[in-house]
Amino acid sequence: MFGSVSPRYAPLTTDTVVDYVRSRPELRTIFYDRDVIEAVEVGDGNLNLVFKVWAQDDPQRTIVLKQALPYVRLVGDSWPLPTDRARIEAQALEIHGRLVPQHTPKVYFFDPEMYLTAMQNLNDHLIMRKGLVQGVTYPHFANHIGLFLARTLGSTSDLVLDYRTKKLEVARFINPELCKITEDLIFVEPYRQHERNRYHPEIEPQVLALQADVALHAEVADLKEKFMTQAQSLLHGDLHTGSIMVNQRETYVIDPEFAFYGPMGFDIGAVIGNLLLSYASHEVRTKDPTQRAAFRRYLTDTIVQLWRVFVREFQPVWDAVDPIDMPPAYQQAYMRRVLQDTAGFGACKMMRRIIGLAGVEDIRGIEDVTDKSIAASLSLNMAVALVKGRHQITRIEELVDIATGCRPTYPWTG
Amino acid sequence: MFGSVSPRYAPLTTDTVVDYVRSRPELRTIFYDRDVIEAVEVGDGNLNLVFKVWAQDDPQRTIVLKQALPYVRLVGDSWPLPTDRARIEAQALEIHGRLVPQHTPKVYFFDPEMYLTAMQNLNDHLIMRKGLVQGVTYPHFANHIGLFLARTLGSTSDLVLDYRTKKLEVARFINPELCKITEDLIFVEPYRQHERNRYHPEIEPQVLALQADVALHAEVADLKEKFMTQAQSLLHGDLHTGSIMVNQRETYVIDPEFAFYGPMGFDIGAVIGNLLLSYASHEVRTKDPTQRAAFRRYLTDTIVQLWRVFVREFQPVWDAVDPIDMPPAYQQAYMRRVLQDTAGFGACKMMRRIIGLAGVEDIRGIEDVTDKSIAASLSLNMAVALVKGRHQITRIEELVDIATGCRPTYPWTG
Repeated sequence: MFGSVSPRYAPLTTDTVVDYVRSRPELRTIFYDRDVIEAVEVGDGNLNLVFKVWAQDDPQRTIVLKQALPYVRLVGDSWPLPTDRARIEAQALEIHGRLVPQHTPKVYFFDPEMYLTAMQNLNDHLIMRKGLVQGVTYPHFANHIGLFLARTLGSTSDLVLDYRTKKLEVARFINPELCKITEDLIFVEPYRQHERNRYHPEIEPQVLALQADVALHAEVADLKEKFMTQAQSLLHGDLHTGSIMVNQRETYVIDPEFAFYGPMGFDIGAVIGNLLLSYASHEVRTKDPTQRAAFRRYLTDTIVQLWRVFVREFQPVWDAVDPIDMPPAYQQAYMRRVLQDTAGFGACKMMRRIIGLAGVEDIRGIEDVTDKSIAASLSLNMAVALVKGRHQITRIEELVDIATGCRPTYPWTG
Repeated sequence: MFGSVSPRYAPLTTDTVVDYVRSRPELRTIFYDRDVIEAVEVGDGNLNLVFKVWAQDDPQRTIVLKQALPYVRLVGDSWPLPTDRARIEAQALEIHGRLVPQHTPKVYFFDPEMYLTAMQNLNDHLIMRKGLVQGVTYPHFANHIGLFLARTLGSTSDLVLDYRTKKLEVARFINPELCKITEDLIFVEPYRQHERNRYHPEIEPQVLALQADVALHAEVADLKEKFMTQAQSLLHGDLHTGSIMVNQRETYVIDPEFAFYGPMGFDIGAVIGNLLLSYASHEVRTKDPTQRAAFRRYLTDTIVQLWRVFVREFQPVWDAVDPIDMPPAYQQAYMRRVLQDTAGFGACKMMRRIIGLAGVEDIRGIEDVTDKSIAASLSLNMAVALVKGRHQITRIEELVDIATGCRPTYPWTG
C-alpha cells in the first residue's frame, strides 16, 4: 500500500500528456483522431499535477487529468507521499458520484499505474475561495453543500451501511500518510513552536498566548483523538473552500484524496471554518460598512442554512433506523455531538490557516500588514471561542453567535 | 477474508488429532516418537473444538489445540462463522505474548489452513468463573489483570503506536462477524423482544420494564455506537471471567478471537461487569452473612484495585507523551472517559447475561428459581444504575458505590 512506485509510472508533462490522452480508449468519445489536442498544467496545490486538456477547435470538449506526485510539491522530494492516495481519491469520487452525482465531477477512468484520474473539467466554475475573497455570493451553495454532507456522511456511516460493508470500507480507506499530514498540520504544529509554522510577525503576541493556553491544548488533544479514532463516516477529509468549485447555479466538491473514516464534524467544520475565515477577512477586505454587513450576513446565513439542510437531508437516515434501538433522544444527542464536533474541528481548521504551514488567500493574501493582522487576530479569537465553547452549543445559531461575537485583539492595547 | 474454507481444512477428532500432532515439527520437543499420545475434546464454548493432548506416561508434556469451526457450535451450521477469527486470535495472542507473556498462554504455532492454534495447556489453572461461583478468592488477580489491561490497551493505542502502524493494525484486526455477534447479543437483543433472549419467566416483569425504558435505550445506543466506531486500542473483545484462567499464583487470559480495535472500556468493563455478576450471585449463593460480606468485599476490593493498577501501569504511557500536545488536563479527562465507558460497557455485559442468549453459570446455574430471580433482579438493577449513572463517575469507588447500593426488586411487591 505504501511501497515503491509502479514501474509504469512517469509524471506527465504538457508534452507527454497529449499522447497519453490519445492512448486511452475511454476518451475516444471526447477526443477524435483529427483533433489538435492542447494541454496546460494548472496544479496550484501541493501534491499533484493537474492538466487541463481540450480540443483546439472545440474547447468544450475538455477534461482534467490529475496525477499524484510521490512527494509534497510545496516542499519537494524531501517529503515523500504515497501515490496510494490517488486510489483513495478515485474510490471516494466513485462513492460521491453515486451518492451526489450533481455535486461530483464525472470520472472517466482511474489509471492505477500512473496514479491518475481523468475527470470532468469544471471549466464554468471557480474555486469558491477565490469568489469569497472577491465578496461574491453563491445563493445555492448552502443547499448544495448541506445535501452533499448529509448524503456522503450519512450513507457511509453505520446508520446506513451493513456491519460488514462498513468495516471493510474502513479498511479500504485506511489512509495513514494523508491523515498524518492533518494530524500534524491541524492538531499539533499550530499550538507549539514549530519550524513549519508561518504566521507573520505582527501577530506573534497572540500566537504565543494561544500556544501557552493549556486549556486550549487539552481541547485540541481531545479533537485530535477523535480525528484519529472515531471511524464514523467516510470523510472528504479536506473540505475547505479550495476544494469546492462553484458558480451561481452549481456546486462541485473535488479532491477527496484525504478521504478516510473519521468524525462527520471534521468535514462540516472544514466548510464552516473556512466560511468564518472569509467572515474574518472581510473585516478589512470590505471597507464599506453596508457592503461588509451584507456579505457577512450572507456568510452567516449560509452557515445556518447549510446546517439546517444537513439536518433535514439526514432525517431519512433516522427515519429508516429502528426507534427501539435508536430512540429520538439518542438521535438528538447524536446530531448535537456532530454539531459540537463541527465547532471544534472548524476552529482547528481556522487556527492552522493563521499559524501553520499552509495559509489561505482570504487572510494571507491581504497585502496591508495591519489589515492582515486584524483579520488574523479576529480569526484566532473566533477559533479559540469556538473550541472552548463548543460543549455548550446545541443549535447552529449558537455556533454563529459565538464566532460573530468576537472582535480582533490587534492592534494590541496597553 | 470471509470466503470459503481452506481445502486442507478438516475438523479434527480425538482419533485424528494424534496423527496431526505427530505431523507437526514444532511439537517434536514436546512429544517423542515413542510416546503414546492421548487426547480429549473439552470445548465447552460455542465456536471451537478444543483438544487437550498429552503423553500417556508423562502428562506434564501436554498442549492444547484450539480449532475454529465454521459455524456457531451452540446453534449448529445454520449460523456460519468465518474461520478468519482463528487468524485474529493467533495474532492477538502473539501481541499479548509480547506485551504480557506472564499472562498469555505460550503459542507453539498457528496453522492457517486448519484454523488451528497449538498452545500451552493451562492444566494447573481453573476457569475463573468456576472459582468465583464457589466463592474462591484469587489474591493476585487484581494486580495481574490490571497490568494486562494497561499493557494490552495502552501499547496498542495511538498514545504508543506510530500513526502508520496503528492504522494498519486497525485494518488487520477488522473482525466484522465476531463484532456483529457482540453488537447483536450485547447491544440490541436484550433491550427488546427477541427470539434469542433466554431469561427465565419469573424475572419477566423486570425485563419488560427495562425493555420499555427509552432513556436506557438511548444510553445503550450511545455505547453501541462507541463500540462500532471508536478504534482506540486492540481489545481482547470477550474478556469475561470465562476467558480467564487462574490459580492462587497466576492469571492467564485466553480466547481473544473477538479481538478488534475498539474502546478500552469494553475490555475493562467486561472484567468488572462479570465480577459484579458474581457479587449479585452471592446474594443467594452464600447464605452465611459473614461469609457473603467477606467474599463480596473481596470482589469490590478487586474492582477498585484492578482499576488502580490499570491507572498506575498506564502512567508510563502518559509519561512518554509530549505534555504540550497532551497536557495533564487532557490525560485526566481521557482516563475519566475510560472509567465512564467501563461502567457503561460493564453494565451492558451484565444485562446480556441475564436477558440474552448466552447466560453465565453464576446466575443461570442457581437452581432455586426464587434465588435465581433475586440474583438476576439485583444484576439488572446494578446494570441500569451504572449505565444511567456513568456520566457522573469520576472515581472507581463511585462505580462500586453505584453497583453495591442496589437491591433486588424481586420478589415484586404491591
